[in-house]
Order: sequence, then structure tokens, then C-alpha cells
Amino acid sequence: MSTSPVRTDTEAREEQTARGLVCELLRLFYEKEWVTGTGGGISCMVPGRGLLLAPTGVHKERVRPDDLFLVEPTGDGVIERPADPALRPSECHAIFSAVIRQRGAGSVLHSHALSAVLAADRATDDTLSISRFEMLKGIAGTRNDETHLVPVIANTPREHQLSDQVEAALADPRFARSACVMVRDHGAYIWGRDIWEAKRHAEVYHFLYEGLTRRTP
Amino acid sequence: MSTSPVRTDTEAREEQTARGLVCELLRLFYEKEWVTGTGGGISCMVPGRGLLLAPTGVHKERVRPDDLFLVEPTGDGVIERPADPALRPSECHAIFSAVIRQRGAGSVLHSHALSAVLAADRATDDTLSISRFEMLKGIAGTRNDETHLVPVIANTPREHQLSDQVEAALADPRFARSACVMVRDHGAYIWGRDIWEAKRHAEVYHFLYEGLTRRTP
Amino acid sequence: MSTSPVRTDTEAREEQTARGLVCELLRLFYEKEWVTGTGGGISCMVPGRGLLLAPTGVHKERVRPDDLFLVEPTGDGVIERPADPALRPSECHAIFSAVIRQRGAGSVLHSHALSAVLAADRATDDTLSISRFEMLKGIAGTRNDETHLVPVIANTPREHQLSDQVEAALADPRFARSACVMVRDHGAYIWGRDIWEAKRHAEVYHFLYEGLTRRTP
Amino acid sequence: MSTSPVRTDTEAREEQTARGLVCELLRLFYEKEWVTGTGGGISCMVPGRGLLLAPTGVHKERVRPDDLFLVEPTGDGVIERPADPALRPSECHAIFSAVIRQRGAGSVLHSHALSAVLAADRATDDTLSISRFEMLKGIAGTRNDETHLVPVIANTPREHQLSDQVEAALADPRFARSACVMVRDHGAYIWGRDIWEAKRHAEVYHFLYEGLTRRTP
Repeated sequence: MSTSPVRTDTEAREEQTARGLVCELLRLFYEKEWVTGTGGGISCMVPGRGLLLAPTGVHKERVRPDDLFLVEPTGDGVIERPADPALRPSECHAIFSAVIRQRGAGSVLHSHALSAVLAADRATDDTLSISRFEMLKGIAGTRNDETHLVPVIANTPREHQLSDQVEAALADPRFARSACVMVRDHGAYIWGRDIWEAKRHAEVYHFLYEGLTRRTP
Repeated sequence: MSTSPVRTDTEAREEQTARGLVCELLRLFYEKEWVTGTGGGISCMVPGRGLLLAPTGVHKERVRPDDLFLVEPTGDGVIERPADPALRPSECHAIFSAVIRQRGAGSVLHSHALSAVLAADRATDDTLSISRFEMLKGIAGTRNDETHLVPVIANTPREHQLSDQVEAALADPRFARSACVMVRDHGAYIWGRDIWEAKRHAEVYHFLYEGLTRRTP
Repeated sequence: MSTSPVRTDTEAREEQTARGLVCELLRLFYEKEWVTGTGGGISCMVPGRGLLLAPTGVHKERVRPDDLFLVEPTGDGVIERPADPALRPSECHAIFSAVIRQRGAGSVLHSHALSAVLAADRATDDTLSISRFEMLKGIAGTRNDETHLVPVIANTPREHQLSDQVEAALADPRFARSACVMVRDHGAYIWGRDIWEAKRHAEVYHFLYEGLTRRTP
Repeated sequence: MSTSPVRTDTEAREEQTARGLVCELLRLFYEKEWVTGTGGGISCMVPGRGLLLAPTGVHKERVRPDDLFLVEPTGDGVIERPADPALRPSECHAIFSAVIRQRGAGSVLHSHALSAVLAADRATDDTLSISRFEMLKGIAGTRNDETHLVPVIANTPREHQLSDQVEAALADPRFARSACVMVRDHGAYIWGRDIWEAKRHAEVYHFLYEGLTRRTP
């Protein structure tokens, strides 16, 4: 990734806005119970700079703009770290990078919502089929009269061990329209071309997860 | 519709109050999960001016007073658009107009609540029957000892394609007391003679939707 | 009731504090979905002055201190009305008075919570039996190892028509420890010796209602 | 316990910060419905000073920093009481002390959440088995591929009567990794090495309680 060596005032302001927005959405997602127990998070591209990433193991609703890491969007390096030496970057980095590489995402989030776990329980083999919901139209390029297929992968002891399965799911043509990968017993990765689309997709998918668990088949 | 060519200070203040209230209720409805994923919305008449309408495809809890369109209440024209050229008026316009024409509503809202989808699943053919709820008294002209009939129409790929079915439901004498039309797999349109009655009706109907899904028949 | 003809500054301050607290709790109860759709409410004694009572038919979370009525706690008269001539006192007045007369309550509230309706569905005849909940200790004079009996009365078309049934339930020795009367399909009246005990009882009973509906018998 | 007879400015500031944080978390837990009806609470060690403890029988979301007691962390004495003579220390003191003594906890909380009651209903004898949840990793020293065993004890008429059962559960090697003791029909005690780990554990366990009640076995 090429990052500009000299930052203009405008670029610095854009980065500060993005840092503030990431923290605001972490608080919103905490209230929705998607990122409780220090789990979950959201990343966001800052053009010309890198990918903003929250620290691991911290209460996500309390993350402040200066606590965020700047990391390589499609690699595994850290570009800039927060001043607090105790902070380490989220374990999600490898998976977020895979989504950015394979889908061109500008923002990827990781949810630990109970509804995602319960919906994954209803998957057949490695696929969750979703149909008969207007909300499907909230997923980019998707109609409300199609059957939307979402990949469901098996959980692993450590988060980075999920990468191979995530990459396979992203490459699977059956899931070309899916903007999420679900992990059994665990949660979901959801993305969009920018942070606003990622937020919309997250609201849509969580609605669908909850709907699937409450709707009689 | 006739709109006054000259606006007095009082009229301008009234319009600003209405714009602020629409945005405040959008935030409230977002918290209630009636308008997540950029879906849903609420419209409100400004006497002598037109109908305030939110833009389509935006996060509804973040709409600001100056983002609203002023459109013809019973036609399909735009009277005044927001400064931001990227904004387009909500696809709900045609349906909101039908409700205003046929029911004399002063405010119409569109909900994407999951409870509306789940309650519609319990409809028999094109009708949801609701009885044995004190909350029925919250619907204008309705007693708590009657069986309240609500129309349930089929969903369509595009929102404006719902218009014919909505118009037929509004004209159906069985549904004369209903202040809502439900759309299968989708949500509901709910209205009132002004924005406060629309808000009351929305709270009452969502209570009834949730009650129907949790109550053993 | 005797009300003091001359009010001291201290008394005036106490009344303003009570008016503010009633409005704050109405907002809290609205968030908890106990008083949505303009239904429900809470009353509070102001010593030497009368009973503070919300207006009927208004959005309860938007009631302001000066919108409250002062009414006779054990009679049916209005002592002081708000300046707005459109406001009428809550229909709950007769029932609140019955509870104050027969139980010496200092605050009575009326809930339209869905959990109250669902719990009443589980009553046998006119009684809901509650046991095996630590929360029972939150009801004044009640242990966690007793079976707590709550009266459940039938709903009526108008709220004041409930009075006879409420008075009979309050006088029934089986329900001597109950701090609530439930109304089928409708909700519950809950009280305490002051507004803080009424709030505690309301939180305890709503916990129990929800617990009864979710617990396998 | 030895407490320093002279307090430095830094120590005084640390204590004020801890008092403020306890009150902030009480408000958060109230919103989550873990401490409604005046029940439940959280305690927190202030190094060199003692254990901060909320008063009993008060609305927990309204506790202010100066309302907290300072008590002996591993004994039963009160070190410093709030100015208000009506306040009495929480009945949880004996149990919190047992957890601090046996597990070296720096913060212990008591939840009255309905999900804890419902999850305890699913226990076999004195044990709740939890597996197949990524969230298990949020419990210190626990993997997501193990079966996590949590002790469930019987409720008693008075809270201090639970102490013997709590002490036995804490000493039971089967429950060495558990950071909670559940009480049937009542709730749970949850702890951590400091207040932040206690908060994380509380969020994790409540997620698991709710998950167990909603997941098909």
C-alpha cells in the first residue's frame, strides 16, 4: 500500500473525522449488543493513509479516537500505533484484510450479536438461505424476491485461524452477493464499500438474523 | 395543491418546527428499530406549503431538517428540494399521497419493524383480525371490544408498485377504521390526521403487532 | 381533603420537585414501553395540596410539570388545572382514588405494558399466582418463599367502569399483600406508599410479568 | 486489612474516580435491567482504603458517589459510611468478601437479571454447563472449545444465608474457572480482578445466560 509521506490539513481533518465516526459507531453497536464483552469491532479505510482498527480486548464503547491503530489494509503491518503501549491491534486484522482484498470493501465490522449465533444454528451445512424479506433490498445489488445465500463457516480456537475458511467463502460464486460471512457459535463479519454502507448492511443482516430466529419456517 | 407564494415569518417558523419534529421522530423510530437499514420514514403536512418527505437511501436517524423534501401531498411533484444534489425523495411518495387523498391524513409513516413482518405472517388471506386488547382504543374511533380488521397486501419488487393494492385496501369498507395497511414480508404504512396522531397510531399498532406474535391464540 | 389555603415557599418548592419527578418517571416508563400510545400514567400525592395527575390522551413522555392536574386524592374533584384549556384529567382518577382510600397509597401508576397483558393471560380465574422469584422480596412485606397472589379483573369498555372490580379486589383478603391489580387484555395498576416505592413495585412486578411469560411452568 | 491513616491527594483522586465509576456502571446495569427494583449492585476495591459498596434498598441508578460505603474487603466491618444516616450497607457484603478472599477478586457484582434466573432453570443439579459459544473466550483463562461449568446454588430467604453455599462453590475444583456463582430463582454473583474485568465478565455471562435460554439444546 502506498501512503502519502506528507499529510495536508484536509487529509488530517478527514482522518480525525473517520476516527471519531469509528468510535461513535462502536458506542452505537455496543448499545445494540453487537460488541459487548470487549468483543467485535469495526474498521474503516482512510484513503492514502491505511485502515483504522480498534485495539483488542478493550471495552469497545469506551474506545477514543486516539486509541485506534492505523494498519495496512491488505497486509499485516502496523502503520501507526496509539500512544498507549499497552494496546495491541484487533485479532480481526487478517480477516478484515481478506475482505478488503477480495471484495474491495472500504469498511469491515465484526459482530458478536446473539442473533447471529442463533441464525447460524439454522444454517444447512455451510449455507444460510434468506428469502421473503423486503430488507434484502438493503444489501447492495440484491432484490427482495431472490433467495440470498450467506456462507456459514466453523468456529476455530483463535480468530486468525478463520482466515482460510473466510477466503474460501469470499471466493465461492454461490456467495457473490453476500456482504457477510457468518461464523458458527461466534458471530459475523459484515462489510460495505464505505463505513455507511457497512453500517446499513450490518443493520439489515442483524434484522434478518433476528427475523430468521423468530419466524416460523 | 395551492401553496402560498409569499411566506410570513410565522409560516416559516411553523415549517422549521415541523422539519425539526420529523427529524426528532426519525431518531425515535430508529431507536425503536422501525426504520433501520435506511428503510422506512415519516411524512408530515405543512399547511399551505406541502408535504415534508425524507430522502431515500439515507440513514434515517441522521436526517437533518434541511435534508427534507417538500413535495405535492396528493400529486407526484417536488415543490422544494434540499441543497444537496445527491438526495432523492423517498420512494414512499406515491403511497403517502394515496393515503392523504383517500383518508385525509396529515402525516403518514412507513415502518420496517420486524414485529410488523411477524404479525403479517399471522394474517388470514388479506386480513389481520385484532381483538382483546385495550390498546385498540388508541386507534381513532375504535373501541376495545370490537374486532379490528387491518388489510395485509402482498409485497412487490419496487415500492411504488404497491400503490394499486394500497388504494384498493383504503377503499375497502371492511377496513374503514384501520389507520394502517400492512405489507407482507415488508412492514406497514400507518397514518393520522396530524403527526401526533400518526405517532400514537404507530405506537399502538406496533404494540399490537408484537402482542399478536407473543400471545397464544 | 383539607388543603392549606396559604402555601409557604418550601411547600411550593416541594410541589415543583414532585411535578418534575412525575414527568421524569413518565419519560422513563415510556422508554420501558409501559406508557406508549398515550396510555398509562403515574400519580403522586403532594402533602397538603392534593394528587398530581397527568392529562389524558397526551404523549406521556412529553408531559411537562405545568401540564399536570392537582385533583382530590380520595374524591373526584379538580383542585387546580393546567393553563392549557385543551387538557382534561386522566380517566384513571377514580381508580387511583380507590387505591389511595383503601390502601393508603401515596403514588399509583397505570401500566399498559405488553408483559402485563401476557402475564394476565396466565391467570387462573381471577388470580395470578407468583412464586419462586427472589424479586418477590421487592414487594413491601413479602418474602421470597411465599406464593404471592395478584388479582386479575376483567376489562371494560371505559376505564372508570373498572372501579367496582378494583374496589372488590382491594378489599379481598386473599390479595392483602398485593400492591397491584391487573386488568385482562389491558395492563395493571401498581402503587406504593410514596413515588419511590411505587417505582420499585412497578419494576418488580414488570420483572415478574415478563418472568412468568418466559418461564416454563 | 491495613488502610493508610494519611491519604495523599493522588489517593483521594483515585477514590473519587472509583466512586464515580461505580455509579456510572450502576446506571449502565440499570439500563440493561440487571439491577432493577432496587436489587443487585457492584463493589470495587480502592487499594489501601477498602471496598466501595452501594447502600441497600435504594434505586441503584440514582446512587451518587457520596452515597457509597467503604467496608472491609475480607471482613464485615464498615470503614467509612455516607453522611446520610438513613443508608445501610448492601446485604451482599458477606458474599462479596467471600469472593475476594477465595478468588482474589478486585470487584464483585450482583445481578438480578431475568436471563440469569431463566438460565439457572436449565441447570442439572448444581451445575450449568456452557459450550459452543465464542463468548466463552471472554472469561479469563477460558477457551471457546471447552465446556464451562458454573455453580448454581439454592436460594435462601435472606441474602447473607447464601454465604455457606457460595463458599463451597468457590472451593469446588469443578468450578475453578468460573467467574460467577448463580443462585436459582434469584440471579448471579460475577467478579473480576478489577472493575473492568468484572464488567467484561458480566457482559459475557449475561450473553451466555440469554443464549442458553434462546438456543435449542
